[in-house]
Amino acid sequence: MVKVGIIGAGRIGKVHITSISTRVRDAVIKTVADPFMDEETAAWAKGMGVQHTTKDYEEIIRDPEIDAVLICSSTDTHSPISLEAIRAGKHVFCEKPIDHDVEKIKEVAAALEGTKVKYQVGFNRRFDHNFEAVQRAVAEGRIGRPEIIKITSRDPEPPGIDYVKVSGGMFLDMTIHDFDMARFLAGCDAEEVYVQAANLVDPKIGEAGDVDTAVITLQMENGAIAVIDNCRKAVYGYDQRAEVFGSEGMAAIGNDSQSSVQISNSDGVTGEKPLFFFLERYMDAYGKEIAAFIDAIVNDTETPLGVMDGLKPVLMGLAAKKSWEEHRPVKISEIM
Amino acid sequence: MVKVGIIGAGRIGKVHITSISTRVRDAVIKTVADPFMDEETAAWAKGMGVQHTTKDYEEIIRDPEIDAVLICSSTDTHSPISLEAIRAGKHVFCEKPIDHDVEKIKEVAAALEGTKVKYQVGFNRRFDHNFEAVQRAVAEGRIGRPEIIKITSRDPEPPGIDYVKVSGGMFLDMTIHDFDMARFLAGCDAEEVYVQAANLVDPKIGEAGDVDTAVITLQMENGAIAVIDNCRKAVYGYDQRAEVFGSEGMAAIGNDSQSSVQISNSDGVTGEKPLFFFLERYMDAYGKEIAAFIDAIVNDTETPLGVMDGLKPVLMGLAAKKSWEEHRPVKISEIM
Amino acid sequence: MVKVGIIGAGRIGKVHITSISTRVRDAVIKTVADPFMDEETAAWAKGMGVQHTTKDYEEIIRDPEIDAVLICSSTDTHSPISLEAIRAGKHVFCEKPIDHDVEKIKEVAAALEGTKVKYQVGFNRRFDHNFEAVQRAVAEGRIGRPEIIKITSRDPEPPGIDYVKVSGGMFLDMTIHDFDMARFLAGCDAEEVYVQAANLVDPKIGEAGDVDTAVITLQMENGAIAVIDNCRKAVYGYDQRAEVFGSEGMAAIGNDSQSSVQISNSDGVTGEKPLFFFLERYMDAYGKEIAAFIDAIVNDTETPLGVMDGLKPVLMGLAAKKSWEEHRPVKISEIM
Amino acid sequence: MVKVGIIGAGRIGKVHITSISTRVRDAVIKTVADPFMDEETAAWAKGMGVQHTTKDYEEIIRDPEIDAVLICSSTDTHSPISLEAIRAGKHVFCEKPIDHDVEKIKEVAAALEGTKVKYQVGFNRRFDHNFEAVQRAVAEGRIGRPEIIKITSRDPEPPGIDYVKVSGGMFLDMTIHDFDMARFLAGCDAEEVYVQAANLVDPKIGEAGDVDTAVITLQMENGAIAVIDNCRKAVYGYDQRAEVFGSEGMAAIGNDSQSSVQISNSDGVTGEKPLFFFLERYMDAYGKEIAAFIDAIVNDTETPLGVMDGLKPVLMGLAAKKSWEEHRPVKISEIM
Repeated sequence: MVKVGIIGAGRIGKVHITSISTRVRDAVIKTVADPFMDEETAAWAKGMGVQHTTKDYEEIIRDPEIDAVLICSSTDTHSPISLEAIRAGKHVFCEKPIDHDVEKIKEVAAALEGTKVKYQVGFNRRFDHNFEAVQRAVAEGRIGRPEIIKITSRDPEPPGIDYVKVSGGMFLDMTIHDFDMARFLAGCDAEEVYVQAANLVDPKIGEAGDVDTAVITLQMENGAIAVIDNCRKAVYGYDQRAEVFGSEGMAAIGNDSQSSVQISNSDGVTGEKPLFFFLERYMDAYGKEIAAFIDAIVNDTETPLGVMDGLKPVLMGLAAKKSWEEHRPVKISEIM
Repeated sequence: MVKVGIIGAGRIGKVHITSISTRVRDAVIKTVADPFMDEETAAWAKGMGVQHTTKDYEEIIRDPEIDAVLICSSTDTHSPISLEAIRAGKHVFCEKPIDHDVEKIKEVAAALEGTKVKYQVGFNRRFDHNFEAVQRAVAEGRIGRPEIIKITSRDPEPPGIDYVKVSGGMFLDMTIHDFDMARFLAGCDAEEVYVQAANLVDPKIGEAGDVDTAVITLQMENGAIAVIDNCRKAVYGYDQRAEVFGSEGMAAIGNDSQSSVQISNSDGVTGEKPLFFFLERYMDAYGKEIAAFIDAIVNDTETPLGVMDGLKPVLMGLAAKKSWEEHRPVKISEIM
Repeated sequence: MVKVGIIGAGRIGKVHITSISTRVRDAVIKTVADPFMDEETAAWAKGMGVQHTTKDYEEIIRDPEIDAVLICSSTDTHSPISLEAIRAGKHVFCEKPIDHDVEKIKEVAAALEGTKVKYQVGFNRRFDHNFEAVQRAVAEGRIGRPEIIKITSRDPEPPGIDYVKVSGGMFLDMTIHDFDMARFLAGCDAEEVYVQAANLVDPKIGEAGDVDTAVITLQMENGAIAVIDNCRKAVYGYDQRAEVFGSEGMAAIGNDSQSSVQISNSDGVTGEKPLFFFLERYMDAYGKEIAAFIDAIVNDTETPLGVMDGLKPVLMGLAAKKSWEEHRPVKISEIM
Repeated sequence: MVKVGIIGAGRIGKVHITSISTRVRDAVIKTVADPFMDEETAAWAKGMGVQHTTKDYEEIIRDPEIDAVLICSSTDTHSPISLEAIRAGKHVFCEKPIDHDVEKIKEVAAALEGTKVKYQVGFNRRFDHNFEAVQRAVAEGRIGRPEIIKITSRDPEPPGIDYVKVSGGMFLDMTIHDFDMARFLAGCDAEEVYVQAANLVDPKIGEAGDVDTAVITLQMENGAIAVIDNCRKAVYGYDQRAEVFGSEGMAAIGNDSQSSVQISNSDGVTGEKPLFFFLERYMDAYGKEIAAFIDAIVNDTETPLGVMDGLKPVLMGLAAKKSWEEHRPVKISEIM
């Protein structure tokens, strides 16, 4: 039985508490820490089988009984708490991104060297049934050598402007998932990034120095060309599709919706929208990523997404930012 | 070059004139006869390359140059003109149904015996790209031994009440196409029919002694069970689907629509309705059935749909009528 | 907190234990009873939070602390244990069918009269996302007045012959779910049943006196005609579809599959099969039905499926059997 | 009746002969000229109703009876014959591209000034039912303001190397259709092009100095970003899709296939491949574009695609070539 401490009881912290409580057999949650821990959250956590709640995450770091830590706190705390936890000998699951600063991620990587600590970064989409299926088709060679990879990722609604300002920009906040997906589907790293982007959804996003619509082209190391299209607002819901085209065929995935019902009437044939909210869309994937982390601990295997998998999408995001600012293709090697 | 005479220049006659004129290489239309032939129709026919128009169909029967006759006149004339044409040694393409009276169809069959006359009946759906594809899948054994055959056939709008009264009833007028399709897909005849039917669309249809909605179950000779569902009115258009389920799989076809466009918005994901009008839906099939008839003449092969293929669906329709009246399953052998 | 006792720890019992343990907030499982309770099952149950396990279901009936009983034992025990539990004042969730004998179901109904006991029968499909969606569309009037209802229900593999022999026959074992679905979708009862059935899948099923393939026509009280097609074996998986056609449109649902991936290659465009196993297909529905039962207790409302909803499909199944034996349409009123 | 002369009786010339002969009511073909005119082609043309065939296209230019000329000869002759025909006062339908040399297209534009000559360039896809439907949805405002436009265009097989060498390169030969489509869907011109391209399909294409796989990003004047992905070889057939995403929704189109049949078996659910050959895919569109040209003559209206619509995609193609050579975004204004 893996004893887990969870740092951060916000939206994503609660998702992981629920997953461990309801579907991860080999783990129990000893402690949940959150600086804003209140009675309601504490009661809810108790109901989910959490043994102890606190405002002080250091209790988790110091607790010799706790084997593994899930870092679900704000982005700026990811790398410092990662370091603390690693030094305390605890396995770490860290929400993405580890940091926006490459040097800080490298510090985490350095801290891991020579230890037996398992480290996993939270790119949940790799565990989604659709993305898993398209990746498996590619990895099994069913479409031959990948030539063109297309990823569509559009949010149903833009985040609040206050969040936009501290988000690190769309490329590090939103596209980062797609950068990870491009690596996952291609089975290799990117060499170069070119960005065409615009502020079309909300002028306030532009005033905050960010974009909300983008097409990002990636030259992958295996010769394939990847292209990501992003928008902060799709009125029809959370649009999450991908397609890998290769020498022997194509594998493509569509969106999930609430049901398969189709209404035919004089207006046409109408099916349901894609699921609107990311937690609804990826709930199962969140459960599977935590289960994979716990499995890696129990079986002493590598985690499916290590610290370098946390670093690479940040490099791609920084290259994308530079491409946007300088209006030219940017090599990943310019960032490192 | 096959010289053709066409009897009847109504809606379906015009379809065949157009097909021969634009896509059947080995045939020319010498004469078109219609008791209501007017200047406009005659001019249109000329424009389509028709050499001669007349009000008197006997001109066609008597013309020694004419090799083949297409009977597109009203249903009551189908069997007498068939007999005349056969006796004049002309190949005959006859619109469905040959007659509602089994004896009259048998007379046509008898007249054909010992002659070299090609006779084809107009069940156009067998030449449709979708129905052809599902039939081919079954015939090639791709779904194993057929077990359940489902045919959905719903009209966009009911015919006028005057037509309903002389139509022979829904089973002989509308379901007759589906009876033919059941035979085509099963690759065998039906043994027994059971009808559950109702008058739900328009009370006037019921007052005229007919039904407008039905589910018809067929026991096929090969052991498969077929089920047809019909309605005289589907607000979303002409609904023409089929599915054959067997020991090794299932083959299914859907509707055609004007385009593949799908609009995603806050209401859902909406595609186009099925094509609304039967001439639009089956235009290509009408062309292929006439081409097949001409091919059978040119190559001296059997027509794809002979006089017995005209008889069998009428027997099924009469059995259906009896089943409806007597509220019990009726064997086809009870009709013959 | 509703205290639950579960009688029967076989496949379906385990499903309900898992659901209550992981997703029903307002219930705890005090006791699980099974005559074949072994150490492994007991340990698994403990892990799911079950407080106590036993071989003797009477412990549950006698336990004054237990509020509600789930009857997941063999079919022959459903009605006697229902009676015991009702008399002990416990709320009852009973797996389908309550009994194959109409009189025994009526005894259960009589026992419930004048009590405050909540009784729910386990027709899980009503809680499935697809069936819920099509029923909602109909109930909201989006397709007008229902005219034709089509239900396809095909199992991936036939049950063992030993099971077939005690199953009560396909109509009471398998079609019973579809009979319930016809009532659910039509929003009314059936008046008459006609069966066309055959033994096509496995001759042993025929030797056991049963059929494995059927098309069942139902005259519903609201005028609609329903048609169910069943087969005990579909090589492509568990086929669970429905369509309701009405005066203003059609609502249709398709199958669920593991993912939306489609592979395009020189063979065609291939998507995944329907989910193969009923527990996989309906896992979520099983959870929702139990949650609905617990909600009805907590909020003192009617259960969504009462004892009469357990009776009606049995009547329909018995009428279907009679129709098959006597080869004629049978009125439900002939059974009661 | 518009009298037409057709210059070039190769593959595309034959398509237009067939269209005019079978579906354009207001035109007749007086003369077909081709330097390689042989007996077989002449006989076929006669059969299609062509009055006269010749090896000398000047006969057409000089013939005072001929109202309109279709230029279907090799690309290098498009602009000189356009000039001759315009000077002879004949309406011109010219296959794409008018020329690879911008100056020569401008000469054609200059020659048209002040004349009443109708000039149409052959971007057939604008007349395709799917592309028409998505464009109409955008133009009618059904998706709001366009933000992201995606065009997928992949050929089933690469052309021969000899053709590749004289084709002007993939961007001017293949992508040119997609450049036109981007303008059609966006309703405006492009400002800038960025190309990521590779030689992945056949090394001989690379040796000939060309690419076979590309992702091309376009900044459109209305703020939308367009992205085209091309490949010279898709094993599953001719892949022709598009999607326009906007502030109020998305309109998307898929491929056409031979039929809607789907086979479900233990391997999955398999539908047909996209239509393989461009003539099969766009046969109807070719007919509609010629009908539109004849209509513009008959009704004295503007052609749907004038000489500037021929120029713009060439500019985009040249900018794409420059972007590829210089590995940077290139403004269209750099070309003009």
